[in-house]
Amino acid sequence: MIYITRKEHFNAAHKLYNPKWSDEKNNEVFGKCSNPNWHGHNYNLYVTVKGSVNSDTGYSVNLKELSLIIRTYVTDKLDHKNLNLDVPFMQGLMPSTENVAIAIWKELLPYINALDCQLHSIKLYETENNYVEYFGGE
Amino acid sequence: MIYITRKEHFNAAHKLYNPKWSDEKNNEVFGKCSNPNWHGHNYNLYVTVKGSVNSDTGYSVNLKELSLIIRTYVTDKLDHKNLNLDVPFMQGLMPSTENVAIAIWKELLPYINALDCQLHSIKLYETENNYVEYFGGE
Amino acid sequence: MIYITRKEHFNAAHKLYNPKWSDEKNNEVFGKCSNPNWHGHNYNLYVTVKGSVNSDTGYSVNLKELSLIIRTYVTDKLDHKNLNLDVPFMQGLMPSTENVAIAIWKELLPYINALDCQLHSIKLYETENNYVEYFGGE
Amino acid sequence: MIYITRKEHFNAAHKLYNPKWSDEKNNEVFGKCSNPNWHGHNYNLYVTVKGSVNSDTGYSVNLKELSLIIRTYVTDKLDHKNLNLDVPFMQGLMPSTENVAIAIWKELLPYINALDCQLHSIKLYETENNYVEYFGGE
Amino acid sequence: MIYITRKEHFNAAHKLYNPKWSDEKNNEVFGKCSNPNWHGHNYNLYVTVKGSVNSDTGYSVNLKELSLIIRTYVTDKLDHKNLNLDVPFMQGLMPSTENVAIAIWKELLPYINALDCQLHSIKLYETENNYVEYFGGE
Amino acid sequence: MIYITRKEHFNAAHKLYNPKWSDEKNNEVFGKCSNPNWHGHNYNLYVTVKGSVNSDTGYSVNLKELSLIIRTYVTDKLDHKNLNLDVPFMQGLMPSTENVAIAIWKELLPYINALDCQLHSIKLYETENNYVEYFGGE
Repeated sequence: MIYITRKEHFNAAHKLYNPKWSDEKNNEVFGKCSNPNWHGHNYNLYVTVKGSVNSDTGYSVNLKELSLIIRTYVTDKLDHKNLNLDVPFMQGLMPSTENVAIAIWKELLPYINALDCQLHSIKLYETENNYVEYFGGE
Repeated sequence: MIYITRKEHFNAAHKLYNPKWSDEKNNEVFGKCSNPNWHGHNYNLYVTVKGSVNSDTGYSVNLKELSLIIRTYVTDKLDHKNLNLDVPFMQGLMPSTENVAIAIWKELLPYINALDCQLHSIKLYETENNYVEYFGGE
Repeated sequence: MIYITRKEHFNAAHKLYNPKWSDEKNNEVFGKCSNPNWHGHNYNLYVTVKGSVNSDTGYSVNLKELSLIIRTYVTDKLDHKNLNLDVPFMQGLMPSTENVAIAIWKELLPYINALDCQLHSIKLYETENNYVEYFGGE
Repeated sequence: MIYITRKEHFNAAHKLYNPKWSDEKNNEVFGKCSNPNWHGHNYNLYVTVKGSVNSDTGYSVNLKELSLIIRTYVTDKLDHKNLNLDVPFMQGLMPSTENVAIAIWKELLPYINALDCQLHSIKLYETENNYVEYFGGE
Repeated sequence: MIYITRKEHFNAAHKLYNPKWSDEKNNEVFGKCSNPNWHGHNYNLYVTVKGSVNSDTGYSVNLKELSLIIRTYVTDKLDHKNLNLDVPFMQGLMPSTENVAIAIWKELLPYINALDCQLHSIKLYETENNYVEYFGGE
Repeated sequence: MIYITRKEHFNAAHKLYNPKWSDEKNNEVFGKCSNPNWHGHNYNLYVTVKGSVNSDTGYSVNLKELSLIIRTYVTDKLDHKNLNLDVPFMQGLMPSTENVAIAIWKELLPYINALDCQLHSIKLYETENNYVEYFGGE
């Protein structure tokens, strides 16, 4: 069993704002992240899959295929978008780094399962100082 | 004469869209950067000043002071903001990396001139693959 | 369950020197790290906590709070200090990267436990080529 | 128990080409990586060992010794070499990142076992966008 | 006048070997870089152009166009290639970082001149510790 | 004419303290950098030389020689040292980044002049947020 990781990236706008709360409460909890006119980030995404090594190729997964899956089903849908408004698989979700990572896991899982390997983790950097890692499960 | 540089950063939303043009023309020129619902970046800003070395301090400029000037007059006004909507010194400007860098130069110049050194350059990274550098002048 | 990480940093002096040993033995074991007049590093600290996602905020932990805890109880006490002489929670400890990481874990644990999440790991870079990771326990 | 990591690097040429297959099949599977005249990479290698902290040194392992072992038995044999042609411990192996990482694990294991710690993982970056991690076992 | 830079990359094999010299002389001058079976690098290329800012776009150059030019005429011809054997515009040149940078300048110059800006510099990293910068001229 | 740069590094302790001043004045000017028990940094040093390309080697300078000069005359004398106490060529100088960069220029100049190239600049990073660049002269 070996773990292999592909890095992709996307640049997006978002805001953290709970419509059930007052502006004051939103500002208290989310601070400047609740700016009504949005802000944005260069996100770096690391997708890790695990599998055994194929003796003909030396590959656990073909990274060209993995990269194409990530770009087609995830980063092409997030890049240069508004995470609150533009992304079907983020509808109704607060676009915190945690929720974006979990949504990416759910989008990728069926496509990774169709390959001869398993999805191990989604690591998502919002800035170079903040990142989350999700391994599936509740 | 020695050159000293301070790095600061800000995270902001923007779009590149010329209201004099049709959506098609905007999309042709700016591509996905013209998304009406915005996108965003983690910007890295490098401010370089030049001066002579003070024999009592070994400093050409006190970086605590330089950092405070950059944050007070520039990055605090850009961070977690929308560059098209929220920033007084960007009003009426297309928020391309070029125009943001030039606007930062203009904001900083009087404050740097009040120190015992000269503003040499503004280097602004929009992504790790794209940056501009401005040295003043036309 | 999701894992979230905050990066902070501090710049400090230290030396590795065991007073029970001769200078020769110290030099043999610690090499140039035993220089009696100290040397120093820019340390990068990554604190990872795990928790579930709050449905109102999308947060597993509020990173503003986590960052404030790390700075107040750890990095403000280490930054621009001598790890052998100046830091109450390092007294009597050889300031190896291992021991600094373990001491940071012990300092942070009660404050993280008071949040609605668990401390998962302390990752401490002494240089870009050397780092330790501690997950608690003996 | 604490985990400590040492980074080393090497620059090497390789190609991915299965001699049992036609050129067309090789190109289909490996793409431009099958270029008959080779290509190459700057590889970054992270070796992680785990152990307990020695109370006299504060060390779990002496990184000077660990670095010397990695360079002597691994990176000196890979640096400025052709991974298909020049490396005794890669003979007969497709030099995919997976296989290079596993081969490095096998080379290092007896030397790490002779220290007072255990080999935990080999993390090998082929590019900044692609890396594998191996923890031993089948 | 403003300077704008686009980063691209390529991975290639090469060796430094002067056929007019003996193996001993080649080894004396080029060391392990003269390995007959090649070695390789992940090269990072920074192309800087200068121009004035267009008031309709805020651009000095359209980076999509600049990137396409660099990839079409330079990096697509270098990526996953052997710099001694595979690259028409490197024929007869020792593939030192200096000569690769100068050859890239010559390839790009007519295409940049056809844009409304000037080629300012080619910066080429062979490793993170070694890079050259070329500004044209003799 | 081409410019080539070699990166080296050193880890050192220092403090910024002017003995002609009171502790209060030192704290006012230098802040936490005046901590009497020292602090330290991982310094990154970039030495740039310029020259023409030798047609036999493709080199403007042999980087093995340049690296050896930098390490022998500069970084071996700074690494794991106290910049206020241990370094002959820093005696009597406030070890600000500016003064360390200028002192390195003076140490290297005769050795670079003995090669077939010219010293162009010394760029010294104290942290990833602060660096100075010196081109010689007053």
